[in-house]
Amino acid sequence: MKSQKEFDAIGHQLVTSIEAVRRTGIEVVEIGRGSCKLKMPLEGNVNHVNMMYAGSLFALAELMGGAVFFGAFDAAKFYPVIVEMNIKYARPALTDITTEYSLSDAEIARIHAEMDDRGKCIYILEQELKDANGDVVAITNGVYQGRSNKL
Amino acid sequence: MKSQKEFDAIGHQLVTSIEAVRRTGIEVVEIGRGSCKLKMPLEGNVNHVNMMYAGSLFALAELMGGAVFFGAFDAAKFYPVIVEMNIKYARPALTDITTEYSLSDAEIARIHAEMDDRGKCIYILEQELKDANGDVVAITNGVYQGRSNKL
Repeated sequence: MKSQKEFDAIGHQLVTSIEAVRRTGIEVVEIGRGSCKLKMPLEGNVNHVNMMYAGSLFALAELMGGAVFFGAFDAAKFYPVIVEMNIKYARPALTDITTEYSLSDAEIARIHAEMDDRGKCIYILEQELKDANGDVVAITNGVYQGRSNKL
Repeated sequence: MKSQKEFDAIGHQLVTSIEAVRRTGIEVVEIGRGSCKLKMPLEGNVNHVNMMYAGSLFALAELMGGAVFFGAFDAAKFYPVIVEMNIKYARPALTDITTEYSLSDAEIARIHAEMDDRGKCIYILEQELKDANGDVVAITNGVYQGRSNKL
């Protein structure tokens, strides 16, 4: 089990290692074993009519696939890639936007075993992105593949 | 019919009016009546393993919905919103990436008539994002709604 200090280091890496992600100002609110809460600030991410830009909402959801993965598995042995993502925009995003996700213990065990056995494993995250009032602004379905470095 | 100078002004507006889009360095290669070619530079948009970041590929495809709309309709009367987007990642993007799209005359006429009659109209763009070798790196399906300001 990783320490909170290790989880915080993973979170820092997550929002700084890709320049285009860092530019959005996205923040890790909480991170643990296979679980994470992320926040996209409205400031710096508005469109021409002062709602959150569609691409920043996408970036918020997309990053979760890495966040829960690196919080659950050993980055020296495994890495994730994105296969497909769908995003439905439900209402204008007028505040900072958050999303949270937890892989269950059973899902962590399944992904780990398949990556060990077959070198790769599909995992799917369904997320609801919410504004400061708790209203859903977007719904996403992301398909990722976890891979073993030995593949 | 707009002049090329007007189209170029639309293109400039397209890549500068949303800060998060401007930050990517995306370029308008060509723009005309309902047609556009866009380029996302690899530089500034790489991920931690030096391929183009998934979110920058999304941004490239997403922007096309506005590009072809503003190249076809009067921005004083109509505006587009994104409803839903799906993106499938086909292979690593290791060069600058381009996409081009043209609305047919019939599609422009359909969207214009529906926006005039009903105040809104759904339009769908299917795109193939290509690398410098012409290989497809991602396939997108974007659902947009054109709206009349009078709605």
